[in-house]
Amino acid sequence: MRVLIKNGTVVNACGQVRQDLLIENGLVKQLADVIDVEQPCDIIDAEGCYVMPGGVDVHTHFNIDTGLARSCDDFFTGTRAAACGGTTTIVDHMGFGPSGCHLRHQLAVYHDYAAYKAVIDYSFHGVIQHVNHSVLDEIPMMVEAGISSFKLYLTYQYKLNDDELLQAMHHLHRAGALTTVHPENDAAIAQRRAEFINAGKTAPRYHALSRPLECEAEAIARTINLAQLAGNAPLYIVHLSNGLGLDYLRLARARRQPVWVETCPQYLLLDDRCYEREDALNYLLSPPLRNASNNDALWCGIADGAIDTVATDHCAFSMAQRQRISGGDFSRCPNGLPGVENRLLLLFSHGVMTGRISPERFVALTSANPAKLFGLWPQKGVLAPGADGDVVIIDPRRTTTIRHEMLHDNADYSPWEGFICQGAIRQTLSRGRVIFDNGAFTGSAGQGRFLRRAPFSPAHLPVSEPET
Amino acid sequence: MRVLIKNGTVVNACGQVRQDLLIENGLVKQLADVIDVEQPCDIIDAEGCYVMPGGVDVHTHFNIDTGLARSCDDFFTGTRAAACGGTTTIVDHMGFGPSGCHLRHQLAVYHDYAAYKAVIDYSFHGVIQHVNHSVLDEIPMMVEAGISSFKLYLTYQYKLNDDELLQAMHHLHRAGALTTVHPENDAAIAQRRAEFINAGKTAPRYHALSRPLECEAEAIARTINLAQLAGNAPLYIVHLSNGLGLDYLRLARARRQPVWVETCPQYLLLDDRCYEREDALNYLLSPPLRNASNNDALWCGIADGAIDTVATDHCAFSMAQRQRISGGDFSRCPNGLPGVENRLLLLFSHGVMTGRISPERFVALTSANPAKLFGLWPQKGVLAPGADGDVVIIDPRRTTTIRHEMLHDNADYSPWEGFICQGAIRQTLSRGRVIFDNGAFTGSAGQGRFLRRAPFSPAHLPVSEPET
Amino acid sequence: MRVLIKNGTVVNACGQVRQDLLIENGLVKQLADVIDVEQPCDIIDAEGCYVMPGGVDVHTHFNIDTGLARSCDDFFTGTRAAACGGTTTIVDHMGFGPSGCHLRHQLAVYHDYAAYKAVIDYSFHGVIQHVNHSVLDEIPMMVEAGISSFKLYLTYQYKLNDDELLQAMHHLHRAGALTTVHPENDAAIAQRRAEFINAGKTAPRYHALSRPLECEAEAIARTINLAQLAGNAPLYIVHLSNGLGLDYLRLARARRQPVWVETCPQYLLLDDRCYEREDALNYLLSPPLRNASNNDALWCGIADGAIDTVATDHCAFSMAQRQRISGGDFSRCPNGLPGVENRLLLLFSHGVMTGRISPERFVALTSANPAKLFGLWPQKGVLAPGADGDVVIIDPRRTTTIRHEMLHDNADYSPWEGFICQGAIRQTLSRGRVIFDNGAFTGSAGQGRFLRRAPFSPAHLPVSEPET
Amino acid sequence: MRVLIKNGTVVNACGQVRQDLLIENGLVKQLADVIDVEQPCDIIDAEGCYVMPGGVDVHTHFNIDTGLARSCDDFFTGTRAAACGGTTTIVDHMGFGPSGCHLRHQLAVYHDYAAYKAVIDYSFHGVIQHVNHSVLDEIPMMVEAGISSFKLYLTYQYKLNDDELLQAMHHLHRAGALTTVHPENDAAIAQRRAEFINAGKTAPRYHALSRPLECEAEAIARTINLAQLAGNAPLYIVHLSNGLGLDYLRLARARRQPVWVETCPQYLLLDDRCYEREDALNYLLSPPLRNASNNDALWCGIADGAIDTVATDHCAFSMAQRQRISGGDFSRCPNGLPGVENRLLLLFSHGVMTGRISPERFVALTSANPAKLFGLWPQKGVLAPGADGDVVIIDPRRTTTIRHEMLHDNADYSPWEGFICQGAIRQTLSRGRVIFDNGAFTGSAGQGRFLRRAPFSPAHLPVSEPET
Repeated sequence: MRVLIKNGTVVNACGQVRQDLLIENGLVKQLADVIDVEQPCDIIDAEGCYVMPGGVDVHTHFNIDTGLARSCDDFFTGTRAAACGGTTTIVDHMGFGPSGCHLRHQLAVYHDYAAYKAVIDYSFHGVIQHVNHSVLDEIPMMVEAGISSFKLYLTYQYKLNDDELLQAMHHLHRAGALTTVHPENDAAIAQRRAEFINAGKTAPRYHALSRPLECEAEAIARTINLAQLAGNAPLYIVHLSNGLGLDYLRLARARRQPVWVETCPQYLLLDDRCYEREDALNYLLSPPLRNASNNDALWCGIADGAIDTVATDHCAFSMAQRQRISGGDFSRCPNGLPGVENRLLLLFSHGVMTGRISPERFVALTSANPAKLFGLWPQKGVLAPGADGDVVIIDPRRTTTIRHEMLHDNADYSPWEGFICQGAIRQTLSRGRVIFDNGAFTGSAGQGRFLRRAPFSPAHLPVSEPET
Repeated sequence: MRVLIKNGTVVNACGQVRQDLLIENGLVKQLADVIDVEQPCDIIDAEGCYVMPGGVDVHTHFNIDTGLARSCDDFFTGTRAAACGGTTTIVDHMGFGPSGCHLRHQLAVYHDYAAYKAVIDYSFHGVIQHVNHSVLDEIPMMVEAGISSFKLYLTYQYKLNDDELLQAMHHLHRAGALTTVHPENDAAIAQRRAEFINAGKTAPRYHALSRPLECEAEAIARTINLAQLAGNAPLYIVHLSNGLGLDYLRLARARRQPVWVETCPQYLLLDDRCYEREDALNYLLSPPLRNASNNDALWCGIADGAIDTVATDHCAFSMAQRQRISGGDFSRCPNGLPGVENRLLLLFSHGVMTGRISPERFVALTSANPAKLFGLWPQKGVLAPGADGDVVIIDPRRTTTIRHEMLHDNADYSPWEGFICQGAIRQTLSRGRVIFDNGAFTGSAGQGRFLRRAPFSPAHLPVSEPET
Repeated sequence: MRVLIKNGTVVNACGQVRQDLLIENGLVKQLADVIDVEQPCDIIDAEGCYVMPGGVDVHTHFNIDTGLARSCDDFFTGTRAAACGGTTTIVDHMGFGPSGCHLRHQLAVYHDYAAYKAVIDYSFHGVIQHVNHSVLDEIPMMVEAGISSFKLYLTYQYKLNDDELLQAMHHLHRAGALTTVHPENDAAIAQRRAEFINAGKTAPRYHALSRPLECEAEAIARTINLAQLAGNAPLYIVHLSNGLGLDYLRLARARRQPVWVETCPQYLLLDDRCYEREDALNYLLSPPLRNASNNDALWCGIADGAIDTVATDHCAFSMAQRQRISGGDFSRCPNGLPGVENRLLLLFSHGVMTGRISPERFVALTSANPAKLFGLWPQKGVLAPGADGDVVIIDPRRTTTIRHEMLHDNADYSPWEGFICQGAIRQTLSRGRVIFDNGAFTGSAGQGRFLRRAPFSPAHLPVSEPET
Repeated sequence: MRVLIKNGTVVNACGQVRQDLLIENGLVKQLADVIDVEQPCDIIDAEGCYVMPGGVDVHTHFNIDTGLARSCDDFFTGTRAAACGGTTTIVDHMGFGPSGCHLRHQLAVYHDYAAYKAVIDYSFHGVIQHVNHSVLDEIPMMVEAGISSFKLYLTYQYKLNDDELLQAMHHLHRAGALTTVHPENDAAIAQRRAEFINAGKTAPRYHALSRPLECEAEAIARTINLAQLAGNAPLYIVHLSNGLGLDYLRLARARRQPVWVETCPQYLLLDDRCYEREDALNYLLSPPLRNASNNDALWCGIADGAIDTVATDHCAFSMAQRQRISGGDFSRCPNGLPGVENRLLLLFSHGVMTGRISPERFVALTSANPAKLFGLWPQKGVLAPGADGDVVIIDPRRTTTIRHEMLHDNADYSPWEGFICQGAIRQTLSRGRVIFDNGAFTGSAGQGRFLRRAPFSPAHLPVSEPET
């Protein structure tokens, strides 16, 4: 099986060049100025388009049951949406299992969830719901099984305290796993929530007021220092939403600490005015949206190299679910936004097309860096001979207006409704098969394979370069 | 003559409160929760609106002859436009006179330009076109005459070298005047211009490429250090366009050096994609527009207090002039943008209404800080008993789409054409007289008075506060 | 009673001038170029000397019982030593009382400790040993009683968790008290201590290794953010020992958060090589001494204004006590260093005489700033008419070699043994009485008065200026 | 010829290990835990000592004629002193030739100076005394001849203006040469010098006052930006003396600009109190010594990786010369300090032995980084098979008191007289020959070879790591 993509501009994190790209048997076979093949071959003309590594989204929550509700996307609808947005790899979170369950219990559950469903390649992050000898002892075998990253929570039901956090990071580091952390100070949030609830202040805006940015910034600084104390454990901060936290991360980077950070489109492009909307309930997520100055600060980090990856934290609950479960009360509403289909185009439009970042940096943020950090490089995240034939073709000349009716997830709304993007996703290829083509999903359930990820290794780590 | 503004939210740099405001004989007479007057009095109902000090725009160029062309706004059309945008005070630049002319020559010329024309109160900045004993000796008498700030250029025809710059800053400091500087490295620009022109690269985009941001950043760092060497002379950097320059200014402020900085709406909201437009010629100004990441960096400075003022650098040349004079060649096109009418609403909409800054900080940036820095405080820049009755009333509930046909300057286009702003300028009052009312100019030429400005004094200097 | 100090250079935080200084009835009466009095008057010739406000040391622990041991200085020997080092005011910590005791219990105990003993004026910091309604309710009456600052511990027996910390800071803020915090992460220290002890690694060097600088830096960032979340409560960080923590504080100050920081001579001038000495046990304190690069970083903060005060954390245990109690095991050794007598001269010699700071900044760090922050200004911390006649006279031409045998505390060693200082304390006056004179203590027990301190107020807060 | 160094700790920039080291025919042959040789071999027992790459000092001025005087060290006495201080490679400056001379003229002159004289290997930096087509055209052939770095001056007789600076950096970059710059603002210095001289203020202290740190900081920021404008030309700033300049360099590095910086022991350990000494004339150099806070700031940069190299700027004029020529007038005194013999031990004692830096970072600063930047790597700067057998053996247990009578240069004083250093240089080997042995010089003139340096290449550039 062969596919030849002709006349496009092939972009990798390290450079771009007008080249043809040949995929054979699912792998990138050749890149050259002009490739002409005699054998039977599908040909895609990418004249005027960017030909980029398919997106790697390392932050999704399909099938998750948060206690309040089960999210409305499973591995079929979720990966279908991802595919239609140009993403060809996802790493989902294996949370949450029954209290006290083994790590391997969740691994089995998630293999079940994903097999026969996933449209694109996938892997899972472990979730450390509790810390004891049994769990810590399981970590090496999980890494052996291809799970080389684990999520720790500092708030919510499964929050870890400092002692547990140190133990977990120490063991993860030793086992070759990357620690990822959801950083929010639980005590401060709990006090504020209680105050608001007691005062009957349960409108959506109080969600944001109950967890100000200092809750997140505190937890970021704490985690950075505890990672250092846990033997300089490598650390990945998820869904950064604010500029103060970014400043703490800059200090750590200036000290050459191995710490990386992810943000999401919603923290770059939406702000807390959403909580004044009629449909504010649809914008509840944690950390919450901040004010527009934090958008500005994060964009500076996107451009100057302080931010390493952009993921989605896709965690979809329908408007109907949200309304039914919460009755409009923020404290009873499931948290999370859909968005796995919109990541690439939003960043392309507001990053590349505005001149904030180059196409190369776009690739670094959306596929190369996450692949390097999470043990998928160089199979994913790059278009080079031998890599998987995962490709997204973006046409910068077209304009896309986001409408939920055109999206492919299982939610009933999009927080991006009406957003106008400069650019369009034209095709997505997963290991050489076209799975999205000019608006139409052309893949099928079960095509995606589980990715046994390599242990965390400093060998390929991103050194993000600023735009000049 | 009495005007009572009722039911509005009165905003000063130090706070906001729902108050009524009474103006009598052109001065603020009283602020109180409720004011009821028995004598005849005009009453304005400002229910739901912000009542703020009229704008102080300290960077305009009316009547300027740059050598290539004379700008198309004089003190009537220029101040009329200002008034219709909520600005009640301007400080214009007295440049450029005949080579070698006395400072007082230009003062006489500008008094002529402004008298009988100006709609709002005005003053002038001196311009040091050359440095010799005669000019340096004139400075104290100019300060005596109310001219307590002077502009120095580091590029263009009247550029000063380091030796002259040091001398000028030293004498200005001693005389009680504030030094303002247009910072761009002339040698680097000259080399690049020559290269482009020799290569026939004269399209508008080469304007920006001929003066990259490092030209400006270099000159900012140089000026900061030379000001320190000139006896710690107070310094005001005009029209900052880039983030690196801002970083240099942050370092100086961290060292408590007396240096302040202005930016303009075009550097916050427009970017170098304008130079790809068909009408790119209409966006030529110096420093040029930068990429969108510099917008982000400047917005961070607006929010965190690193930037002190927002002015316009209004310097209008019509499309017709630009095209006719340049024939499309950037190197022959007059530089500058109109905008004196749009400053307040643009910053209100994109700053206050987005949540980046508070209404108080908006007042600090647009009137209080410039008034303090340029010897106009507390006559201007604050609504307090005894201050001039200069007021702008802004309605945050209305939406304004900028169309040049609705503006009041003498240009034939607006760089802001089609911009949608949240908010509307409802009324402008100059010393108690309504000069703009719901879309209509109601003032008249000659009402504006010359403002004999006080010497520069550290007593009232802005200590810009960040938003929290 | 009159004392006239002639021919000296009077230094306040805001400037220095060659002036005579007259004290009458214990208060500063007059400052003038030349003062000649006819009435009977003691005259001190300060030709060639600096005449400065007596030192205010806001961090001492006299009489403290840490559980392991009682410190060897009481309010007589402790304040005698202070006086002989030029310090005329101390604020001691009222810790630790019986578990669960009332705040007022400790106040009574400490009044007993100090009365009839103290040589110089004194006050106390409250110590929040636990948080419950009863303690929180007592705070306002303590402030009423002149106790306007309270210490919170994040490690040791009386450590508070985040929830308690938030509650305490909130109530302290509301009551007009300043929160002071000992910041070290308890969980990380506990793990490391246990590891070392289990491995039999109990030599003094393991004390430092059991609490690396990240333990302190983490707790500083946490406290800063929790203070912000507690309604922007004013915060004072004690005994800063490292540069990373200082960087966090710089970020908070850049955001204009009301936070201040103290360091101590030992963190400026001693380093962790002390833990390789034979007498390493004598250098155990918490936070521990760091490497010399942290000295450098703190000196930068002393000079550029990022650090606000220098105190001593005087907490003396004799060599004999240390050795007897611990048997050489760091984990059983009482923590703390003597030093109340050496603060002024060490900072004068290594700060002023090296050219790092001016005499004015020296006064700011050692008396003016602590007086302002802790409700003692302008009674203390300044030489101006009406202020207390508390004076230290320093002769910059003499050299002092520190020998414990010449000191006046009750310990049997000095960590500063053999240090050579440029300068000498010549006289100390407490409310006009000479209590130290050229090497001899001339005061007496019981002369010191309790200082009922004013509530915390932003009115006089230090805005530390960098040296230029 | 074989030399075996046994039992030492071999230190390279990337790590240290207890190893034996065998040198054969002047090259490093083998490193291993234990090496035993049967053939005849000199054996050095380095038990307890550090075995490090011989020092690379890239900033010396032997034989220089500054116009006022000729320095008193030639290539024999200068390199002899270097050798006795553990330095085995120097790169000297080929300045100054007759006005208008060719670059190759100076190359011939310097080859003459060095041949038959140099004790250790050597190369030269070109000096661009003026800019015109002829000089610019010569650059490539100089690089071809092994001269891959050039010095530009911004002050003194041969200062370049911005236009010339841009041209020179552009051509140097294109030819594969590294630009090095002496940054001081000439105009500001000229004004101040003239003022002091006119006022009869010619005592040595006015030397420092005539060129404050802002003169240097300004020129650093200027050069950084002009290098960027000259096509992102790689840049090396020499003899950094102040913290503000370092902050500008940090900003450039954060933007990933290819810029590196050198400081010298005198800027780390001496300060402007030297200008109050009786022998102040012996401390005149440019930039001058700053206050102690700048020492602190530079030490922070040494530790955190912001500073890349430590060189000496050895430029010796005897006390007799200084006094005779100047008569005590700073403006007539030749500038420069001797010190080529003291660099390693001063940095070892005050850097490594204080705990500020590791032995590895010491090697990076003193040999590995300069070798990489100046085209000498991996022949110099590392102990690895194939590298030159240039070694310094340092004994950390001994103490050295610096006395000029024990030094080997041709001056009659040392600015380091009486300095006590922890550590001692035990042996120096140049290509396997012992040239210094426990206090005695054992080399001979003419042994040193000219090093034809490789063009500047990013391949081996230092990425300085901070100490943790």
